[in-house]
Amino acid sequence: MKKAVVLLSGGLDSATILAIAKQQGYVCHALSFDYGQRHGAELNAARFIAEQARVMEHKLVRIELDSYGGSALTDSRIAVPDSPGSGIPVTYVPARNTVFLAFALGWAEVLGSFDIFIGVNAVDYSGYPDCRPEFVQAFEKLAGLATKAGVEGGRFTVHTPLLHLSKAEIILAGRALGVDYAHTVSCYSADDHGRACGVCDSCRLRKAGFAAAGLEDPTRYRNGGIV
Amino acid sequence: MKKAVVLLSGGLDSATILAIAKQQGYVCHALSFDYGQRHGAELNAARFIAEQARVMEHKLVRIELDSYGGSALTDSRIAVPDSPGSGIPVTYVPARNTVFLAFALGWAEVLGSFDIFIGVNAVDYSGYPDCRPEFVQAFEKLAGLATKAGVEGGRFTVHTPLLHLSKAEIILAGRALGVDYAHTVSCYSADDHGRACGVCDSCRLRKAGFAAAGLEDPTRYRNGGIV
Repeated sequence: MKKAVVLLSGGLDSATILAIAKQQGYVCHALSFDYGQRHGAELNAARFIAEQARVMEHKLVRIELDSYGGSALTDSRIAVPDSPGSGIPVTYVPARNTVFLAFALGWAEVLGSFDIFIGVNAVDYSGYPDCRPEFVQAFEKLAGLATKAGVEGGRFTVHTPLLHLSKAEIILAGRALGVDYAHTVSCYSADDHGRACGVCDSCRLRKAGFAAAGLEDPTRYRNGGIV
Repeated sequence: MKKAVVLLSGGLDSATILAIAKQQGYVCHALSFDYGQRHGAELNAARFIAEQARVMEHKLVRIELDSYGGSALTDSRIAVPDSPGSGIPVTYVPARNTVFLAFALGWAEVLGSFDIFIGVNAVDYSGYPDCRPEFVQAFEKLAGLATKAGVEGGRFTVHTPLLHLSKAEIILAGRALGVDYAHTVSCYSADDHGRACGVCDSCRLRKAGFAAAGLEDPTRYRNGGIV
């Protein structure tokens, strides 16, 4: 059985890639990061999703991205916008996916795995540079040069099954695999109970995805969804 | 004044690149990692070196590479060899420099810096894949694609002034800049007082470097240097 390291944030996309990796026959080693994000609700969701999916192992690792901040998600002095702006938004976390993939690469090498799954998407996304295909390709190249396993001829693949899907397509794919999105948290400002704000960029993309998919939105919103 | 992030392990090489970065006129932001290495002596050395060099800031960050282990440096069940073997040794830490550079990249971006210094060397080294020029080049390419600053046209440089120097040349370069190597710790198995074993790969390379440079070795060895 092939092993894979699956980056699991606790959001909609990462819950979907975990289901896809399982369906493709991988023994899944889930990896979540406490990187100083604004709330712990998504990590609670990650624990729940990992358990439901009966992963082989779920590692929760602290990475102090809040020690340098520079993002609305890792510096409480920067507010999460409640309406879309132009350009790359302030919720961009410098080098986040680079750090996450680097850590996943090390764990994969120790496991003897060459497969890493990440739920990046370049369609219904916030414009983060480290969600684009050219970033993923550059990381795969780096992985081969960075590791003993790569030097010995192994070839790492960063699987991005959601890369070119719309949010609605992602939701439909996950639903077909039995993902229960009620237990995922996408909101940048979820409360301690995992209830979403309904207005941040991540909430908007998610809400529009359910609407476009023609499905009832199972997200638990604060104020009963009236925002 | 240009800012640089300087990776500072507390060893001979990183103390030298800090001196070089300063000499090149950079305002230095030093970055050290507690990654679960076998001893804290090198981090004590890093603190001392950073203070002596009057860096602008010194960040010490915990990164749990010991959560996946797989190396004699991050898993106490794997012994540090006391004689050289063939191939990449068990002291290789999977993805270590990738994780370190990724974190440095994030901090650099927040600082508005495009310059990262790392003391990798591909001459008198242990054969680690993530010390080679092709790795460094691949990381620079990734950095441009991963970041907002890169997308906006900024170009990150990973400075590797030691890459093609012998250990003796590194020592002579550092001495010329006033580096006091007595306060650096290279040994994989240093004791709590920072005293070196004298027999590990890192000790051997360092000892041979001082001999080739024709300089007295200021390293504090256990047993007074008799090994």
